[in-house]
Amino acid sequence: MSAQDDAGVLLSSKRSLKPIFEPQAIAVIGASRRKEAVGYAILANLVSGGFKGKIHPVNPKADTIEGLECCHAINDLPEGIDLGVVIVPSTAVPETLELCGQKGVQSAIVISAGFREIGGEGTRLEREAAETAKKYRMPVLGPNCLGLINTDPAISINASFSRTMPRPGNIAFVSQSGALCAAILDYAKGEDIGFSKFVSLGNKADINELCILRYLKDDPKTDVILMYLEDLVDGARFIHLAREITGDLVKPKPILAIKAGRTLQGAKAASSHTGSLMGSDEVYDAIFAQAGVLRVDSVEEIFDLATAFAYQAIPRSKRVAIVTNAGGPGIMATDACVRYGLEMAEISSATQEALRKVLPPTANFSNPVDVIGDAQHDRYEHALTCVLGDSNVDGVIVILTPQAMTDIEEIAHAIVRMNQKTKKTILTSFMGFVDVSPGIKILEEHHVPHYKFPEEAARALGAMIRYKQWIIRPRTEVRSFPIDSVGVRSIIQQAKEKNQRLLTTHQAMEILKAYGFPLLPYEFASFAPQAGAKAEKIGFPVAIKIVSPDIVHKLDVGGVRLNLKSAAEVERAFKEMTSAVLKFQPAAKIDGVLVQAMGMKGREVILGMNRDPHFGPILMFGLGGTYVEVFKDVTFRLAPIRELGARRMIESIRAYAILKGIRGEEPADLEKIIECLQRLSQLASNEPDVSEVDINPLVVYRKKEGAQVVDARIVLKI
Amino acid sequence: MSAQDDAGVLLSSKRSLKPIFEPQAIAVIGASRRKEAVGYAILANLVSGGFKGKIHPVNPKADTIEGLECCHAINDLPEGIDLGVVIVPSTAVPETLELCGQKGVQSAIVISAGFREIGGEGTRLEREAAETAKKYRMPVLGPNCLGLINTDPAISINASFSRTMPRPGNIAFVSQSGALCAAILDYAKGEDIGFSKFVSLGNKADINELCILRYLKDDPKTDVILMYLEDLVDGARFIHLAREITGDLVKPKPILAIKAGRTLQGAKAASSHTGSLMGSDEVYDAIFAQAGVLRVDSVEEIFDLATAFAYQAIPRSKRVAIVTNAGGPGIMATDACVRYGLEMAEISSATQEALRKVLPPTANFSNPVDVIGDAQHDRYEHALTCVLGDSNVDGVIVILTPQAMTDIEEIAHAIVRMNQKTKKTILTSFMGFVDVSPGIKILEEHHVPHYKFPEEAARALGAMIRYKQWIIRPRTEVRSFPIDSVGVRSIIQQAKEKNQRLLTTHQAMEILKAYGFPLLPYEFASFAPQAGAKAEKIGFPVAIKIVSPDIVHKLDVGGVRLNLKSAAEVERAFKEMTSAVLKFQPAAKIDGVLVQAMGMKGREVILGMNRDPHFGPILMFGLGGTYVEVFKDVTFRLAPIRELGARRMIESIRAYAILKGIRGEEPADLEKIIECLQRLSQLASNEPDVSEVDINPLVVYRKKEGAQVVDARIVLKI
Repeated sequence: MSAQDDAGVLLSSKRSLKPIFEPQAIAVIGASRRKEAVGYAILANLVSGGFKGKIHPVNPKADTIEGLECCHAINDLPEGIDLGVVIVPSTAVPETLELCGQKGVQSAIVISAGFREIGGEGTRLEREAAETAKKYRMPVLGPNCLGLINTDPAISINASFSRTMPRPGNIAFVSQSGALCAAILDYAKGEDIGFSKFVSLGNKADINELCILRYLKDDPKTDVILMYLEDLVDGARFIHLAREITGDLVKPKPILAIKAGRTLQGAKAASSHTGSLMGSDEVYDAIFAQAGVLRVDSVEEIFDLATAFAYQAIPRSKRVAIVTNAGGPGIMATDACVRYGLEMAEISSATQEALRKVLPPTANFSNPVDVIGDAQHDRYEHALTCVLGDSNVDGVIVILTPQAMTDIEEIAHAIVRMNQKTKKTILTSFMGFVDVSPGIKILEEHHVPHYKFPEEAARALGAMIRYKQWIIRPRTEVRSFPIDSVGVRSIIQQAKEKNQRLLTTHQAMEILKAYGFPLLPYEFASFAPQAGAKAEKIGFPVAIKIVSPDIVHKLDVGGVRLNLKSAAEVERAFKEMTSAVLKFQPAAKIDGVLVQAMGMKGREVILGMNRDPHFGPILMFGLGGTYVEVFKDVTFRLAPIRELGARRMIESIRAYAILKGIRGEEPADLEKIIECLQRLSQLASNEPDVSEVDINPLVVYRKKEGAQVVDARIVLKI
Repeated sequence: MSAQDDAGVLLSSKRSLKPIFEPQAIAVIGASRRKEAVGYAILANLVSGGFKGKIHPVNPKADTIEGLECCHAINDLPEGIDLGVVIVPSTAVPETLELCGQKGVQSAIVISAGFREIGGEGTRLEREAAETAKKYRMPVLGPNCLGLINTDPAISINASFSRTMPRPGNIAFVSQSGALCAAILDYAKGEDIGFSKFVSLGNKADINELCILRYLKDDPKTDVILMYLEDLVDGARFIHLAREITGDLVKPKPILAIKAGRTLQGAKAASSHTGSLMGSDEVYDAIFAQAGVLRVDSVEEIFDLATAFAYQAIPRSKRVAIVTNAGGPGIMATDACVRYGLEMAEISSATQEALRKVLPPTANFSNPVDVIGDAQHDRYEHALTCVLGDSNVDGVIVILTPQAMTDIEEIAHAIVRMNQKTKKTILTSFMGFVDVSPGIKILEEHHVPHYKFPEEAARALGAMIRYKQWIIRPRTEVRSFPIDSVGVRSIIQQAKEKNQRLLTTHQAMEILKAYGFPLLPYEFASFAPQAGAKAEKIGFPVAIKIVSPDIVHKLDVGGVRLNLKSAAEVERAFKEMTSAVLKFQPAAKIDGVLVQAMGMKGREVILGMNRDPHFGPILMFGLGGTYVEVFKDVTFRLAPIRELGARRMIESIRAYAILKGIRGEEPADLEKIIECLQRLSQLASNEPDVSEVDINPLVVYRKKEGAQVVDARIVLKI
């Protein structure tokens, strides 16, 4: 909860991060003359990075460092310092921040390590530092971070100990691993990738990913946001904020994220690393899905995708054409396109005819378009003109293999020309390494994304399409159904008074009834003749189920009897059941039985709710039965969900085909499941006392014929 | 069939490929003085490639080319030409090969295009060329290929028009795409990868992948074989030959293959369950699995894996350790290791103690071992010494991120030293691009495989483990069960005489009985009272099923009745059924009914067989029920299978967990399923007239309690 509170304070107070990203005057506290010291590297980077404002080294002994005049103490600093970069030993950090606060320094970056990541005393120091930050409403980045870079030429700040200042670009990178930052910057240097902002989050004692996202949301220099995350401080707020960014109607910005610690063992490594709490991977999948964030697996993939998003328009549709001078790579690219959810565009007959006029007869005029091994730039240019002019085509992957006649650089220039003329998406792959590299350089300089292999281009285009589907999605709201809240409160209140954690089937069904779920008709009966009479009322056949706060698994103790056909049968079953149950559990308190109509046959689904200690209520959906358990074919979302979110849950399980109807079967009543999921979402949001719900099964009938809850289990938080 | 025959001739005759791979004298037929001509490029490549033998250009007009004396006609060539490289127009190729044959030229490479790939006349020319090759028992590579390279210093032949001669190495590359060869050579040049042989197969008119594999099998210079394939000429022979190579007990050579055209759907024999689930890609998966070939998706992956296999020992077990100077990449690598089937080694407490002595206290001593951001080469070397000395560790991934203190080149040298001392597998990832590149160069020069990202190292190590499991697998044989072949022949003969394609349920069950399958007890009855009497004999309850050669789907026409409890019920059901069936299908010939015992409850599986027009009999295995169809959770193998193959089929479906028993359930009788799969394999191999078999379901009981065929469907090839 403390992390949530922190975020809350930070978000609600809306402390500006302007002083940290766009400072005019910087103090380097712990600046050093020793060239191997971080306190020297930072200062040197600020100078060599071309910082446009003033730099004030602070060092108790030195008078000048790198020609800059030093202050001997924080108190000696001039007024109007926007940012203090702190590189003093961890034990001195809380006091340093206190002095900064007193001096009116607007913000700080704590580079120093030796905090929460080492535990014990470090954790205490970090807490103290965070409290000081809060006291002075002074945003603090870190501790234990690489620092921050803003390439905006008006600022040009490299407040990091990175070896490299990247070139300006429209990609922002936010990382929870400082060392990864170093690798990324070196990688980007080689691939000539530019950045707008580069942020190493460190231990997130004060500033966290939410603060940074809020800043980047309105940063005109940033078009794409990349994140390396090991945890999130607040799932719900992340979803809320990221949706605003990724789904903005005017200028949506894609967010691509690596969430490390996917596997159990990875998560273990994560906790030993930063000591941060790891949620289960499914929860993160749910959060990213709800936030419109594209989750990727590796650094390579994140950059492959980022360059596509940074430099190219998002294609209007998933119909892609391939233009290649080699058959084999064309086939491989086709395979990859299909694998990544793209569709091979049908080249129109008009285009095919146009291609016939400009390509040799042995070329391939359908998709993939093969301009043949001896193609030179003119043939590529002709073919691209035809293909890009085809209204069936919204994206093109251009493949080149270096053959005897291939004029690689001229072809690169031709592609650049085509790219400048078209609004369609062009990605390229010049296969090879040495001979093709001058061509690749031309493409990269002109912002035509290049991939070493066509498969990677297909993957990037596939991600663009996934994002496209997100930004054009219909916007729906969180629905609020009228409910009988008084009834629910009274059931929960009574249970809490009796210290009853597990509700009886009867209580659970009553709560669901109050929340408007469609239920199989039932009546409660506390003695045998009453059960018979209630059964007459419901109509035969009926089932009876034991109602007891002490029975966890009704079936295991003989607490369920099905298909009873007369009042006499019901009464006999009542008696047999109560004595059977008492034989299993002599101390069980038995309230009576639920007399329930026998349901019609239908498709069985499971709806569930659970509370994650870190992320709050999480909804689950899956099909009933053994197979689903084996295949782990379930999906999760953080509550609350919107109507579309509920629909996506249903669509995202593999067994969705069964609900849609296979082999001529009619579809199930999907709308009713969507409604039930939303009702469960409302219950999760409204009832903090409810910690777990299992609706198992909800039997779903055919389209427009509804669904009915057959059994349910509710556990209270006590 | 013709492709199979070709391969057969070639394999059985065992024509040596020595003249083509290791020639002493070469004729370049169609050599040219024009520098832009392929006929010039080939000659120039032979010369500049340092060919050790004699080169004879053949050109009707020129007297010398590049200082070499020309022959004006093939007939003018000296005796003893091992290899003719042919670059004449396609129309002249058949005659050229004829002249070569007459002259006693031992082998040929046809570079020229314009054959089968353009259809029509080209196809005819190709057939003619192939026939000439056969007539003179002269192995011919191509046509329509890039040529061939052998880097063996004793030969040093670049008989290709590639721009590049690769450096010698222990990797052979065989490609069905010439253009891909060009890209690969350029890529390998950049990554400094060496090759033993480089073969562009072209149209495979004569020499195909089988001939090449047979040569590479015994090539002492080749340790790893890479293949790019678009099809296989013969699945069964490929399996047989590749198993010999990949599974050799003395010197196994891994084969890595890209099969392009994954997503293209093969021709479907859609009537059977097995046929409808079987795409061409599933068949290739089956072939590669049976051949011990590692299938990979991309060129990048194939080289990532190849360098690991080429330079490092295969690890003894899947227990891997990670040594890193950065936490984040360590977590990502851990994730990847688990994803690729590795196991994070438990660092022993002795090793942890040793690590404590050489690493700073803030380091991480368990796996991943974190030597911390300021680590220099001494710390890496100490940590690696400890970790490699731990008997729990069989492979190590070393990660480096370029931080302020990192002495990259010294660390690379330290790793090289460790690599020379240990027999354990070491893979590395120096993350970044520019700063790390001198270090990467050192690693590559000393054959320590390097990967741009740790995930790729994990993927390569995972592939080594998969291959390890293949080479240490228990070797089993194809079992032959005693069968009643006379009975089977008579049923098939009778059906063929009546032109009956679909066997009746009765006939199908009789065939399975003859093959020794365990069947649910049944009796045939042709009239109602007989059915009643047979039911008495079997014991109630029983099921009856219509027996008719004209009914394709018994259930759909009311041809199945279950759970009949007396003779009277059986007789009534008989009459109702026959009239119901006739109402649906008035012209149906009804033989009678099968009276069958009602089976016990068990787990239902499906066994199937289908004949692929190209690859012959293919076996299928999956679990019964709707879910399996939705999840496509089935597996295929080419018949015949060995006992281990049958076991692997069962283990490879995702629903295997259900057969093993979930939630405390006892395991199913897996041995009986394995036996049934082998019986089906024998049936598929023995009975060429049977084109499809569906055993659906085979009900499997608990361990040692057997299984019973409940229903089956057999279709004949007519």
